[in-house]
Amino acid sequence: MLFLTPLLLLAIGSGSAGPINNCEEEDVAATCGFETCPQTEPGLLNVHLVPHSHDDVGWLKTVDQYYYGSKTNIQRAGVQYILNSVVNELLNNPERRFVQVETAFLWKWWQDLSERKRNLVRQLVNSGRLEIIGGAWSMNDEAAAHYQSVIDQFTWGFRKLDEMLGNCSRPRVAWQIDPFGHSREMASIFSQLGFDGLFFARLDFQDKKHRLETKTTEFIWRGSPRNLGDKASIFTSVLYNHYSAPSGFCFDVLCNDEPIIDNKRSGDYNVPRKVDDFIKFCNEQGQYYRTDHILVTMGDDFNYQDATMNFKNMDKLIKYVNAKQTEGSPVNVLYSTPSCYLKAVNDANLTWSVKEDDFFPYASSSHSYWTGYFSSRPTSKYFERQGNNYLQVCKQLSALAGLDETGLEDLREAMGIMQHHDAITGTEKQKVADDYSRILYASMKVCEGAINEAVSKLSAPHPQMTVAPLELDSCLLLNVSQCTVSELSSIFVVTVYNPLSHPVSHYVRLPVLGSSYSVLDPTGEEQVVQMLPLHPAILTLPERISKATMELVFRAKDLPPLGFRSYYIRRENEVAKEKTEEVSEVREEDAVIGNERIQVELDDITGMITAVINNGVRLPVTQDFLYYKAYAGHNFGEKNRASGAYVFRPSEHDPTSITNNTNSVFTIYKGELVEEVHQQINSWVSQTVRVYKQENHVEFEWMVGPIPTDDSVGKEVISRFSSDLATDGVFYTDANGREMMKRRLNYRPTWEVQLEEPIAGNYYPVTTRIMIRDEEKSLELAVLTDRAQGGSSLHDGELELMIHRRLLYDDSFGVGEALNEKAFGTGVVARGTHWLMAGSRNENGMTLSAESRELVQRKLLSPRVFLSTLHDVSFEQWKNSRTMEFSGMKEALPINVQILTLEPWKNGTLLLRLEHILEKGEDPQLSKSVTVDLQKLFAPFSLLSAEEMSLGANQPLSEVHRLSWRIEHERRKSHKSRQATVQDSSGVTLGPMEIRTFIIRVKW
Amino acid sequence: MLFLTPLLLLAIGSGSAGPINNCEEEDVAATCGFETCPQTEPGLLNVHLVPHSHDDVGWLKTVDQYYYGSKTNIQRAGVQYILNSVVNELLNNPERRFVQVETAFLWKWWQDLSERKRNLVRQLVNSGRLEIIGGAWSMNDEAAAHYQSVIDQFTWGFRKLDEMLGNCSRPRVAWQIDPFGHSREMASIFSQLGFDGLFFARLDFQDKKHRLETKTTEFIWRGSPRNLGDKASIFTSVLYNHYSAPSGFCFDVLCNDEPIIDNKRSGDYNVPRKVDDFIKFCNEQGQYYRTDHILVTMGDDFNYQDATMNFKNMDKLIKYVNAKQTEGSPVNVLYSTPSCYLKAVNDANLTWSVKEDDFFPYASSSHSYWTGYFSSRPTSKYFERQGNNYLQVCKQLSALAGLDETGLEDLREAMGIMQHHDAITGTEKQKVADDYSRILYASMKVCEGAINEAVSKLSAPHPQMTVAPLELDSCLLLNVSQCTVSELSSIFVVTVYNPLSHPVSHYVRLPVLGSSYSVLDPTGEEQVVQMLPLHPAILTLPERISKATMELVFRAKDLPPLGFRSYYIRRENEVAKEKTEEVSEVREEDAVIGNERIQVELDDITGMITAVINNGVRLPVTQDFLYYKAYAGHNFGEKNRASGAYVFRPSEHDPTSITNNTNSVFTIYKGELVEEVHQQINSWVSQTVRVYKQENHVEFEWMVGPIPTDDSVGKEVISRFSSDLATDGVFYTDANGREMMKRRLNYRPTWEVQLEEPIAGNYYPVTTRIMIRDEEKSLELAVLTDRAQGGSSLHDGELELMIHRRLLYDDSFGVGEALNEKAFGTGVVARGTHWLMAGSRNENGMTLSAESRELVQRKLLSPRVFLSTLHDVSFEQWKNSRTMEFSGMKEALPINVQILTLEPWKNGTLLLRLEHILEKGEDPQLSKSVTVDLQKLFAPFSLLSAEEMSLGANQPLSEVHRLSWRIEHERRKSHKSRQATVQDSSGVTLGPMEIRTFIIRVKW
Repeated sequence: MLFLTPLLLLAIGSGSAGPINNCEEEDVAATCGFETCPQTEPGLLNVHLVPHSHDDVGWLKTVDQYYYGSKTNIQRAGVQYILNSVVNELLNNPERRFVQVETAFLWKWWQDLSERKRNLVRQLVNSGRLEIIGGAWSMNDEAAAHYQSVIDQFTWGFRKLDEMLGNCSRPRVAWQIDPFGHSREMASIFSQLGFDGLFFARLDFQDKKHRLETKTTEFIWRGSPRNLGDKASIFTSVLYNHYSAPSGFCFDVLCNDEPIIDNKRSGDYNVPRKVDDFIKFCNEQGQYYRTDHILVTMGDDFNYQDATMNFKNMDKLIKYVNAKQTEGSPVNVLYSTPSCYLKAVNDANLTWSVKEDDFFPYASSSHSYWTGYFSSRPTSKYFERQGNNYLQVCKQLSALAGLDETGLEDLREAMGIMQHHDAITGTEKQKVADDYSRILYASMKVCEGAINEAVSKLSAPHPQMTVAPLELDSCLLLNVSQCTVSELSSIFVVTVYNPLSHPVSHYVRLPVLGSSYSVLDPTGEEQVVQMLPLHPAILTLPERISKATMELVFRAKDLPPLGFRSYYIRRENEVAKEKTEEVSEVREEDAVIGNERIQVELDDITGMITAVINNGVRLPVTQDFLYYKAYAGHNFGEKNRASGAYVFRPSEHDPTSITNNTNSVFTIYKGELVEEVHQQINSWVSQTVRVYKQENHVEFEWMVGPIPTDDSVGKEVISRFSSDLATDGVFYTDANGREMMKRRLNYRPTWEVQLEEPIAGNYYPVTTRIMIRDEEKSLELAVLTDRAQGGSSLHDGELELMIHRRLLYDDSFGVGEALNEKAFGTGVVARGTHWLMAGSRNENGMTLSAESRELVQRKLLSPRVFLSTLHDVSFEQWKNSRTMEFSGMKEALPINVQILTLEPWKNGTLLLRLEHILEKGEDPQLSKSVTVDLQKLFAPFSLLSAEEMSLGANQPLSEVHRLSWRIEHERRKSHKSRQATVQDSSGVTLGPMEIRTFIIRVKW
Repeated sequence: MLFLTPLLLLAIGSGSAGPINNCEEEDVAATCGFETCPQTEPGLLNVHLVPHSHDDVGWLKTVDQYYYGSKTNIQRAGVQYILNSVVNELLNNPERRFVQVETAFLWKWWQDLSERKRNLVRQLVNSGRLEIIGGAWSMNDEAAAHYQSVIDQFTWGFRKLDEMLGNCSRPRVAWQIDPFGHSREMASIFSQLGFDGLFFARLDFQDKKHRLETKTTEFIWRGSPRNLGDKASIFTSVLYNHYSAPSGFCFDVLCNDEPIIDNKRSGDYNVPRKVDDFIKFCNEQGQYYRTDHILVTMGDDFNYQDATMNFKNMDKLIKYVNAKQTEGSPVNVLYSTPSCYLKAVNDANLTWSVKEDDFFPYASSSHSYWTGYFSSRPTSKYFERQGNNYLQVCKQLSALAGLDETGLEDLREAMGIMQHHDAITGTEKQKVADDYSRILYASMKVCEGAINEAVSKLSAPHPQMTVAPLELDSCLLLNVSQCTVSELSSIFVVTVYNPLSHPVSHYVRLPVLGSSYSVLDPTGEEQVVQMLPLHPAILTLPERISKATMELVFRAKDLPPLGFRSYYIRRENEVAKEKTEEVSEVREEDAVIGNERIQVELDDITGMITAVINNGVRLPVTQDFLYYKAYAGHNFGEKNRASGAYVFRPSEHDPTSITNNTNSVFTIYKGELVEEVHQQINSWVSQTVRVYKQENHVEFEWMVGPIPTDDSVGKEVISRFSSDLATDGVFYTDANGREMMKRRLNYRPTWEVQLEEPIAGNYYPVTTRIMIRDEEKSLELAVLTDRAQGGSSLHDGELELMIHRRLLYDDSFGVGEALNEKAFGTGVVARGTHWLMAGSRNENGMTLSAESRELVQRKLLSPRVFLSTLHDVSFEQWKNSRTMEFSGMKEALPINVQILTLEPWKNGTLLLRLEHILEKGEDPQLSKSVTVDLQKLFAPFSLLSAEEMSLGANQPLSEVHRLSWRIEHERRKSHKSRQATVQDSSGVTLGPMEIRTFIIRVKW
């Protein structure tokens, strides 16, 4: 729905500025959608054959190897062949159908097509013979993926689909057939993306059994029962036979099932047997589903490379099975699609049960809990999260500087790839992981160019003035405290960009070689600088080539929203003003670090924390490193299952402690900006615990590895926080960085779980945050992560997060390698951060929960520093030649609202998403609805128009018409999408957890 | 060319009764043929990529398994997918081309196609994008296949091609890429079929090396230098790289070569390397060929099941290789076909060398002489030859009785399949061999129905009268002396059909249970009957279920040409008139069997022959059974090569004798019709040597097996004839049953051979006959076989034939099984016949060579007996109800002319072939040209018109225009096809070895 202020009317034509389509809206209604569905036979069991191919965007081979079909010795899989041969076969017979999922591959293929072929493909799409489902760049993981990246990758997939294929390609079905468990947030996102149904294959084997027995394989899944209501609910269908063809009916070149041999004179004539087997299968499946329709997946991983085989045999199968109807067979087979199946089920007008929890953790059998991948490849998971931060910064800066999208596209695609359920999950082969890093790094470098251009433009002293590019360096190796510019330059500028929609202060840390630096803000005011030695452990990292042993710390205070401030830094020749006190002989009273609000008590023998005092409330909290010994097995039989890239299976119930309690080495540093303790836990685990002076949390910067395996034991390292909170077996983990899910030890909400793996079976994905709560004391303990990890609370008052894994056995779920990451000839070292919050409300009455949400945002969209070397340029010269401070916003948004997306969009428009970051009831004040005036948001431009879109930005929200479903024990509610609440102003109201999406036209 | 007698003018319209085509002749010239060839680039090396798939009509899998693609565990091969996906891909890009070879598969596929798809395929053919080459039912073997069956299977393939695809599908190129050696007769046949060129891959490795070095990989092969001249010559090209794609460029789903990865951003971008490699390959190959064109095969066994892969990558290869031309690369790659390559080579107008011998034996390396398959699976080879006899009888009777073709089609197809180079060769897996037998047997049973109908019709007392079918039984198990009718009936009729074009007498042998029978000819005259005991060895055959121990023999005298005579046989109750004398106590003077013309002297101790006296000339001849011990190896390295289904490799130079010279058991039987000696050589070899009273040859009916292998030694059994003829290392073997090839020990006519396998390397295929000659004494010794075998003359005066093989090791050329045939739990028993002729000219001055040719025909087209039980029908009753004698011919043809083909053809026409069966100079009289009057040939109908056709009957002879080639050291001759020599009469003149083909219209 378009809303216009009088001002905006100028710019808009006769009222409809709909998206640029290949076909008129009326045409679409007439030629695509459910109208193109095949006819079914009432009274018979209608078997919807769904020809599909599951094409991993990287796994055993790289994305390109899969696309081109190289490295057949690893896997015979070439997506270019799948798409080619499928299209050929669809053209041969109008009955045939196929569904295409991963837009990353479709786009690669599209670029190779002639215009003639493209038109044929469009015709197939328009007539429903080639249906796009899913449609995101990749089929994203649901445990480790962050909602921001998920929404991005759907948006980008949809955008490309629209460009290639037009409106009829708009997907109606979410198709998550392979991800290893399913999050409720994804159900919510899918609903908001406009999907009518969700199909998946993997759920706990006990759950599946239970659902089959109770005929609840299909249901309405409420993705946001507390916050968003029905607009986040989606009809969900659990596939019957994984996502494979029925046994004996895989006609693919990768299979060995017998084709249909219908020459009666042949010695191998097999029609009667094949038909009987198939009918038997259908009747069996039919028992477990409630309508006269069943969906039979006809495909598997990388199937249809030789679609001729598949379709030729399916044609015959359909022909001969249906021929049996004259003999009274009740089975009617047809080529169909998930949408058409969905429509048929919807037409049955039944009442469906409801689910409000999620499908984590996924167990494929009693000793195979797929909870290892929550933590597998921690460095990749970190890099991916950095990629998101970088992409958001790049998008915002491109939009604010009026750049086009070209600089963004690679990183959009790379981040789409990274969301794939074998990428961010860490379940790919090592060489593929390397290639993901290569792709992500290369695309970040492209974005760096755009950022450079944008910041250069925005820092020009006059808007019209062209200035030399700043040659910003992103110093992507700051995670190992390495940065050429800060180390080697005697004068340099640090530009700190804040991607948040409100001001934020940020402690900048830079490795330096000098001992004394002056830091000037744009007003020329000298900033407080604290020099800190690096933790000795970091100095020995083999991948680190820096000579820096010290870090310079200063606080970039109140950075403008969507804006930056530059700091002029000069190395001073004078002797260091020692601003950091080193406490090496620790007395008990010294063993505290902290600030006015929060203090951390340390054990004076071990240096480990013993308590956290927040606003005067003291919580005994300890933190330890431990490891689980990984089960070593060769997967002969379920009991011999190894802990691997997917599966977490400890061989002992209790983890082994790493913390040396008697002979620890630690050093405490205190200064004006930060107090921290450097702990050396053992030879391969170290940690810095720090509290910044003006922060509300404790930071644990751990470094783990190389995990030793000379004892031939794989190890899965955890960081465990223990408190005396009475938590009654309950803890909370976030779903994809958004809503919190309540977890209960040894419990599943919808069935009586039998846990033969009491550790792994209680692990849940922690995308950004895990919490426990003492209801009685009204105290909470929250740990925030800098990447996705697995976590649990196995004992009351405890929280544990798995931070690193090194394994010696493959778990036999396909990857074919033990998760034994190596670098420089030894195991990989992972460095990361946990942020601990503890207590109840803060001084402003803000709940810890709300406060930690705000912190999550600050860490996710952490200010980004860019460094530029200056050569003999004085501060004054610099200040005169550059604008050193810029804000993209006219005024800051309220703390509970964030600009989720701001990026250049097609035809000079911008894509804008606003989100309310709190849940209902999370905070008395901040959980309330908020109204934002779009006109007052942005500084560099004013709004001409804004059209509200569905979440994926591929359809005006007003045109979203989802199927209605009847729900058990409830009056039927319409699923009408939210209409723009404000029609004649630019005010946008956001309820808790709400995200609203706009395509805006602006005037500079 | 049509020729008409005045009489015939009546029936013919305005002068053109050309074949029924889909397009006018003019259209054909305009739209297909060389005109559709792609453009080449003068001055560059034009690389003709030839996309092809080599699709065995059975090998590791049965024909149907290959067609449907089942049993992928054995081999991933499904021809239906190849054809489907290739056609799809051809339609996608008009540049692409493909060649299709085996019509057996094309026909199966065609029947599944919609009319729409058929039209698309026709368009592809008409535009040259899908080119048919070869085009026979299968790609026939060249060693064991008989020319009659070869011509039949080409004719049938061409016929189906024409029906499916019309004129433009007429093949111009013979494509024998896989057969294991190449016969000169095939070159002759290909020429007469109208082919412009012949391509093959397999020739002796030394020969290939020599040809590459001397740039004689392409040449003119004279297929009949003595007899047919240029019309039997063909341009021949030896493929460079077997028939595979260049190493690294197999883009097939069965290969693992890297695809072309042309995304420069991909980590695997490989265009420069791929292009360089390919150009290097082309330049290398180009060195060995004489023109600016090379043919590069892009295919292999069962390639193109997923043609998308192949073509997508070839498109790119062409694009990127040709793009290098701007940088000076001399290579121009194009999609092409063998015809188009051929035309380009022809356009070069070079002068070519000539070859007049053949390409046998084929050796792939120094210890791998592919001479084992000449004899592998002797029982299959026999059954195939019987199939041909049966098919000719069936064809002739169907034609003579005016039946249509429906009864014939199965056997035509089955015999086409049997000619395949893994069928008649015996190089298929056991299960496939079983399936071939099943197919052949089933199709013979269908033909039996046609024969029954025809004979019933022809034996009706009045032409208009409908009589009950005769219920003829072919008694196909007479080869193990078993026949239900003759054994169990007290009265039965034997109808003996003579497929020869002149009268013949035939000794009928029938197993019976009674001891006395009367046999009446149609005049009621009682025939001489001789009762003979069966050789005891046959009685113990496990597969034999007959109780008969005796055979009844009578002579069916002067059977009419293309006619039959019935004999009324009644079992008599009287005591047997003993007509056979059993000689068990052999005195020296008794140890002779024979007749007035020919006598065989036997050793009175062993019963083995010692001499043959023919027309009074005594030739000392002995015959022995021996075996070669097979080399046992696992094929690790060439020296470890085993003797196997393909390869013959004895482990010792001298064969081991089987004949027991001291303690043999033998019995001599003499009677009015035949004299014979029953020899028991050892426990698993036996033999009957016999001379019929009115025959010119000695018959050796051997029975070998089960060959014992309890000593873990494979054995290859030979029958060896030794004489004192001075043969100087020279012997003669027939090529496919036609012209004789001169062989010389340890010698090849075109290069200096180095033989590391002195036995196997001197073996040659014997399709019907092997001979030696003492030039000085003007004496010859000829052995005729009843099936194809390998044979040699390793010492002067000797002839040996390999009659059975049982091996314990695979020779690692693909079949993956040791040739260890089993039946009833033990090794298979083979029973067969050699016919020996010895001496010089006969009493009429006919040379032994000519006489043995006549005998070859008599054995090949041996009269066929059909039996019918009568129930209480007297001779008179029978005689009155049936015509007991019929001749299809008005008058017999001269002895040197044979009707090679007479069969129902399309639209009520008949197909007629006449052949001259002698070579030039073989006999002073019979080798002369003969003129036959077509009008006087047939009894049941008169000729309305006859159109002379090319040998394959797919083109009027007058329209055959083959390419002309210049030959070294010779004036260029035109290859003009023979015009019908007689234009205004029905006289047809045949020179030596000439075959002429007509489509005739007849009036009944």
